[in-house]
Amino acid sequence: MTNFFSSKFKLGILGGGQLGKMMLYETRKYDIKTFVLDPNPEAPCKVGCDHFQQGSLMDYDTVYNFGKKVDILTFEIETVNIKALAQLEKEGKKVYPSAKTLESIQNKGRQKLFYQKHNIPTAPFVVFSNKAHLAEGITNNKIRLPFVWKSTQGGYDGKGVSIIKTGADLAKLPDVECIAEEMVNFKNELAVIVVRNPSGEIKTYPVVEMEFHPEANQVEYVICPARIDDKVAQKAITVAQKVSESFEHVGILAVEMFQTQEDEILVNEVAPRPHNSGHYSIEASYTNQFEQHIRAILDLPLGATESIVGGIMVNLVGAEGYAGDVEYENIEKIMQMRGVTPHIYGKQQTRPFRKMGHVTIIHEDINEAREIAEKVKNTIKVISK
Amino acid sequence: MTNFFSSKFKLGILGGGQLGKMMLYETRKYDIKTFVLDPNPEAPCKVGCDHFQQGSLMDYDTVYNFGKKVDILTFEIETVNIKALAQLEKEGKKVYPSAKTLESIQNKGRQKLFYQKHNIPTAPFVVFSNKAHLAEGITNNKIRLPFVWKSTQGGYDGKGVSIIKTGADLAKLPDVECIAEEMVNFKNELAVIVVRNPSGEIKTYPVVEMEFHPEANQVEYVICPARIDDKVAQKAITVAQKVSESFEHVGILAVEMFQTQEDEILVNEVAPRPHNSGHYSIEASYTNQFEQHIRAILDLPLGATESIVGGIMVNLVGAEGYAGDVEYENIEKIMQMRGVTPHIYGKQQTRPFRKMGHVTIIHEDINEAREIAEKVKNTIKVISK
Repeated sequence: MTNFFSSKFKLGILGGGQLGKMMLYETRKYDIKTFVLDPNPEAPCKVGCDHFQQGSLMDYDTVYNFGKKVDILTFEIETVNIKALAQLEKEGKKVYPSAKTLESIQNKGRQKLFYQKHNIPTAPFVVFSNKAHLAEGITNNKIRLPFVWKSTQGGYDGKGVSIIKTGADLAKLPDVECIAEEMVNFKNELAVIVVRNPSGEIKTYPVVEMEFHPEANQVEYVICPARIDDKVAQKAITVAQKVSESFEHVGILAVEMFQTQEDEILVNEVAPRPHNSGHYSIEASYTNQFEQHIRAILDLPLGATESIVGGIMVNLVGAEGYAGDVEYENIEKIMQMRGVTPHIYGKQQTRPFRKMGHVTIIHEDINEAREIAEKVKNTIKVISK
Repeated sequence: MTNFFSSKFKLGILGGGQLGKMMLYETRKYDIKTFVLDPNPEAPCKVGCDHFQQGSLMDYDTVYNFGKKVDILTFEIETVNIKALAQLEKEGKKVYPSAKTLESIQNKGRQKLFYQKHNIPTAPFVVFSNKAHLAEGITNNKIRLPFVWKSTQGGYDGKGVSIIKTGADLAKLPDVECIAEEMVNFKNELAVIVVRNPSGEIKTYPVVEMEFHPEANQVEYVICPARIDDKVAQKAITVAQKVSESFEHVGILAVEMFQTQEDEILVNEVAPRPHNSGHYSIEASYTNQFEQHIRAILDLPLGATESIVGGIMVNLVGAEGYAGDVEYENIEKIMQMRGVTPHIYGKQQTRPFRKMGHVTIIHEDINEAREIAEKVKNTIKVISK
C-alpha cells in the first residue's frame, strides 16, 4: 500500500514539539494527512498538521483513543504511554517504532541490559533499584567512585545525569531507580543516525562529531562529517547498524557513542526518533532525517543518506539571565553569513538554556564551516524583550 | 526592524496554491505568522498558515480588508486586485512586489513596452487593442505571418498563447487585447531567478535550461546549471539582473529568456514571484527560492544563491484520459532512485495536464541527473482511482 499521498490515509504523531514540527514540513511536502497530540495548546506543531489535539501523552485513554483515529502511529518524544501503544498494536494498529522497542529504550537500565544481552559495546554499569541499593553497591565495591549516575527514567538533555565524585555528591541524588556507569575517558562523542523500515531496509548517515565547549562541558557544535579516522568511522557505523537491527527498530534511531582513547566505540545511549545530531541533514544531506523517518514508517524506499556538503549545527538556547517573550538578537547578522540558516522552533517564551532553535552552517569545506559556526555562536543571542 | 521571529508580526500572502504552500515551509522554519487568502476553501495553503481566509483575490474589498490585517503583504499569483494593493500602499502598508511593479507585469502588452522603454532585449512586437486592429495590422504589414499571438491578460502555462500561421488560425482567436510577436528561432529557453530586497541588495541564481519534449513542445525538464556556454550564461544573468532593477522589483523575479541561434539573449516574460524554474533550489541550492523570497520581502540579508549540487526538476501533471481522485502510480519506484524527491501539491482531483506536483533529482553529475530524470518521467504517472 503506497497510497499515502493526497489520500484519506492518516498519520498520528505523539508529541508536538520542534521534532514534530520539522516532520510536518515533510508530511506537507508529501501531502500526507497528520494528527498530532500534545499537552501544550500552543505546541510548535499546532500549525502545519491537519488535526491538532491537546492532551496528555502519558494518559492511557488519551493516547489509546488518539491512536484509534489514525492508520499509523509514530512519536517524536519517548515519554508516552507505552501500554496504550501495546494495546493498539494488539488490535492491529501499526505503531513505529514499536511499543516493544520503545520499552527497551525508555528505561535506561533496561536499555543498558539490552546492549549487554546483544553484545553491543557499552561502558560497564550496574543497575540499582533505589538510593539505598546504590549506597550498598558502593560499600560492596560493585561500583567505585567516581562514576556516572543516571536516573533510569525521564532523563533528557543532561537532566537526570550526574558525575558522582564524593559522598556529598551522592547525598544530593534523588531516591529513584538508577544506573551507575564507569567513567569513560573518551576522545570524542560521536553519533550515527540509522534508518530502518519494516521491510528491513537499513541505511546509516555519516558519523557526526559533538564538539564540546572546553570549559562548559556543553555540546557546542554537531559536525558532519566527524573529523576522525575512516577506520573509526566505519566501526561506529557498524555498531550503530547493529543497534538498530537488534532493536528491530523502525524509523530514525540516533545512536550516541564514545570514541575511547584506544579508539574503541562504546554506545552511550539512543533516541528512537529524529534527533538533534541529525538536524544538519535538512540542509546538508540527500535526504533529511525527517523525510527519512516518514519514508521508513510508511515502509517506502529509503532515501540516500550521503551528505552533499559539509554541515554544522549550533543549538540556539536561551541566554542566562533572560526569561520571557523571546527575541533573537543579531539574527540578521548571522543571516548575512554564507550558508547559514536559522531554524526557529516557535516557542514564545525563552528561559536560560531552553532549546529555542538551531542554526545550520553548510560549506564545501568543513573547516571553513567550523569558522563560520563559531562566528554564529558568538553573534546571535536568545534574549527576552 | 528584524523582529519577525516568534513575534506578533503578520505576513499576508495573496493566493494559497502550491507556491504559497512551499513558502509556508519557510515561514514555519522562521516561525513567522502568516495570513493566507484564496478563493478555494481546500487550497494547498489551508494547512501550514496561521490564518486561512476564503475569498476572491480579484475583489477590491476582500483584498483591501485582508491587507489591512497584516504588516507586510505579498502574493504567490499575479491575478490579484491591483487597485486594492495600490490603496494599501497609499495608506502606508508594505506590499512586495509593489502594485506598480505588478501593474507593469500583469498586462503582457505593458510588460513588452516596459522592456522597450528600458532597453531590455526582447523579440519585436506590436500591441493591438482587439481582433479588428490585429487584422488591420496584418493588412498594413505591421506584423507578418507567422507570428506568436499572446493575450495581454490572464495568460498562464501556455494558455493565451498561439502560433498564428494562416488566416484560419487567426479566425479562431478571441476578440481581446493582444500582442503579436515575431517568431524567435531559439536554441534554448533559459531562465534566471533574481532576488532583490527593498534595500537594493540583489542576487541571481545560476542560469537554468528548459528542455523541451522533441515532439510535444512541452517543457520536460528544468536543468540547473544550464548546459550552455559560460559567456552566454553571463549575458543572461546580466540581462536578468537589469530586468529586476528596472522594475525595482522586491522578492523573487523569474526571468524567462530565449537564447537565439546567434547567442543573443531576448527576454520572453517574467513572473514576479517564486517560479517553477526555481523549484530545483529546494534541494540543490544554498538557499531555496522560497526562503529567499521571505528574506527579500522582510528586507533581511539575502542568502547564497549558488548550487551545492546539480538539480533537475520534472513537473508532475495529470495524465491524459484521467480525471477524479488522484493517485500517484509508481511513486514508490521513483523514490528508490538516488537523489529523487517528489513534491505533492495536495490537489485532491487530477485532470489532464493539471500541475499536481514536481519531482527534483539531485546529483553531483548533471548528466547522471538527466538520466535519472528521464527514468522518473517514464515511471511515475498521475492517474485517478
